[in-house]
Amino acid sequence: MLPAIPFTLQCSRCKRSHPSTQLQRVCDDCGRPLLVRFALDHATGTRVRERLDSHPRSLWRFRDLLPIGPSTVIYSLGEGATPLISADRLAARLGLSKLWIKDESQNPTGSFKARGMSVAITKAVELGARRFCLPSAGNAAGAAAAYAALAGCALRAHMPDDSGDGFFDECRAYGAEVVPVRGTIADCARRLKEECDPSVWFDLSTLREPYRLEGKKTLGYELWEDFGGDGALPDAIVYPTGGGTGLIGMWKAFAEMQELGWIGPQRPRMMCVQAEGCAPIVRAFTSGAETATPIEKPQTAALGLRVPAAIGDLLMLRALRESGGAALTVTEAEWGEGQTWLASDVGLFASPEGGAASYAVKKALEAGVINTADSVVVFNTGSGFKYSRSTWPKPQL
Amino acid sequence: MLPAIPFTLQCSRCKRSHPSTQLQRVCDDCGRPLLVRFALDHATGTRVRERLDSHPRSLWRFRDLLPIGPSTVIYSLGEGATPLISADRLAARLGLSKLWIKDESQNPTGSFKARGMSVAITKAVELGARRFCLPSAGNAAGAAAAYAALAGCALRAHMPDDSGDGFFDECRAYGAEVVPVRGTIADCARRLKEECDPSVWFDLSTLREPYRLEGKKTLGYELWEDFGGDGALPDAIVYPTGGGTGLIGMWKAFAEMQELGWIGPQRPRMMCVQAEGCAPIVRAFTSGAETATPIEKPQTAALGLRVPAAIGDLLMLRALRESGGAALTVTEAEWGEGQTWLASDVGLFASPEGGAASYAVKKALEAGVINTADSVVVFNTGSGFKYSRSTWPKPQL
Repeated sequence: MLPAIPFTLQCSRCKRSHPSTQLQRVCDDCGRPLLVRFALDHATGTRVRERLDSHPRSLWRFRDLLPIGPSTVIYSLGEGATPLISADRLAARLGLSKLWIKDESQNPTGSFKARGMSVAITKAVELGARRFCLPSAGNAAGAAAAYAALAGCALRAHMPDDSGDGFFDECRAYGAEVVPVRGTIADCARRLKEECDPSVWFDLSTLREPYRLEGKKTLGYELWEDFGGDGALPDAIVYPTGGGTGLIGMWKAFAEMQELGWIGPQRPRMMCVQAEGCAPIVRAFTSGAETATPIEKPQTAALGLRVPAAIGDLLMLRALRESGGAALTVTEAEWGEGQTWLASDVGLFASPEGGAASYAVKKALEAGVINTADSVVVFNTGSGFKYSRSTWPKPQL
Repeated sequence: MLPAIPFTLQCSRCKRSHPSTQLQRVCDDCGRPLLVRFALDHATGTRVRERLDSHPRSLWRFRDLLPIGPSTVIYSLGEGATPLISADRLAARLGLSKLWIKDESQNPTGSFKARGMSVAITKAVELGARRFCLPSAGNAAGAAAAYAALAGCALRAHMPDDSGDGFFDECRAYGAEVVPVRGTIADCARRLKEECDPSVWFDLSTLREPYRLEGKKTLGYELWEDFGGDGALPDAIVYPTGGGTGLIGMWKAFAEMQELGWIGPQRPRMMCVQAEGCAPIVRAFTSGAETATPIEKPQTAALGLRVPAAIGDLLMLRALRESGGAALTVTEAEWGEGQTWLASDVGLFASPEGGAASYAVKKALEAGVINTADSVVVFNTGSGFKYSRSTWPKPQL
């Protein structure tokens, strides 16, 4: 049995350390996200690798690289271990030699949000929390409510009032309290601050506690395994970006895997995709800024992309630049067309965000930031079914 | 490399052989389902087992036990490899010592139907088919349409006109032609017969071709792995039953695994669950009949259970009886309560059928066919989201 790998919690900006033996939020000094830092080396990498098959067929396959004690009760619905689908007909449509879809819609609750919530709620319950709150565009609330139900905990979710029945009914069925808020997820976050006493409700907001990111980083570990486990990774990763934890999490996984000796210094080019009506990261990337300024009037029906300001902006922009990546926008019509491609060419009923990432490949090819010979992985972050019917994938005309 | 295991196609009733080198439907003589029969022994079992990890993380992990040639193009969306979720809070509610949910909603297209369609369409395309048709209550059509899209093939689906937007829109997005029919899946089957020339359209109806069942049997192989791969299986399996291929497929897998030397002669008790308003198998089981007589006016909003007559009746009834199992009905209110339990105690937004199987555990305990000390696996065959909102899981009152 491998002893748990020691870790610390370190501020992503000022590097200040915070104790991991109690519930933590953001950095006490500068308010930026805290990151889990493991002491990793090649010897650890060898030992961890030998033990992968001893763990369940889920993201908990990488349990030895998650900051969860060996005797902790795990709250798992089978999250992770999603398929990497070879999308040959869509590749042909786009003129690419090799294209895969990492289909996160096959997670519990139908989206990639399950990864973060399984780890965050497991850890928070380990540290004594029993009541959770969060602002959410929809999918994060559904995932949080499901794991709260599994753990027998309370959840209060502030959600935009136009998120739609799918998200509201789901959360309520799990037993969560839903607070509809006029506006975006940023307005929800403001209301949550007024209404949820932090001494009662533990806040699961994106990157405002350190452990959702640990769940998300398993996306990177899985890609490594999906590509054969011999160090190969795709040339480019195309990721729809709201709060950005998926992208940041993968970037963290790549750094860890290099320390473990599982991959070399080369990285996939990370491509962030946002909606034209709400593209703070694309704007900051293009202008060369280190952080992003909030979008005043965000407008997109791709709920997961309607994130006017993200606390992970600095980390995202770093990953995009260090990887030699790019940042792209798509219009509402374009993500709709991307959904149609995923349905008719691959057989996936994708979320608007998945459609956005798919269409962005075409734009990236046109912009020359992806080449036809590149191997490309596109993320479908969620299923389309929970969204309002007006945003479902349409048949090809 | 293990050479492909030879197999024949044999009638499940009269045992007549049919060649597997061409497309086959039912028995030419007696019209009953054809079954794939492999030549299996312990030596094969050892070799196959050693090769499991060389296959993808999906039902194709059991590729060596599927009747698909080694050079065949596989159409896979990552179906299978679904989680077995430990449902401790629901177990406590029911007074059971150990309860798991096999969550088939985490398949592509959100239901267990993906398993059969991946294998059936892969095999049919290998044998030259490019146009498919089927009658479906909803989930089978969605799955068939998705794999047809992946393979670049045509699909025509006859569906009850009250199946709801989720199923219709999904199929159409994948590029399928949907034919709404007033009535049940039996009425759809009649219309399909009139409208789909079998020399043009290959019929994927339940058990009217031999390969969907092969996909479904992987449920049994996965349970064996989920229980540790050392021969252990649950005491009881509770399965919502419409056409019955899941139940029949598992039963076939258990027989194969015994020939392979992976399990002994003991079997889980198989429990079939149907809706009170449409319970042909329960009626036949209770009356001691060998086959079931059709239900005249089937009435249930659990679409997958609204199957008035099933060609697999003989095979289902055999499995129930040989296993020492049982057959149970639940009312509309009861499957709704089962959905609520799955949501509030486990974090699953289940289909009506999953709710039916969950509630049936309570009835099985009351009837004494399940004991509190039994280890029990309940199948949630699909996600609730594609169904009409009126049948979604409701919050606990």
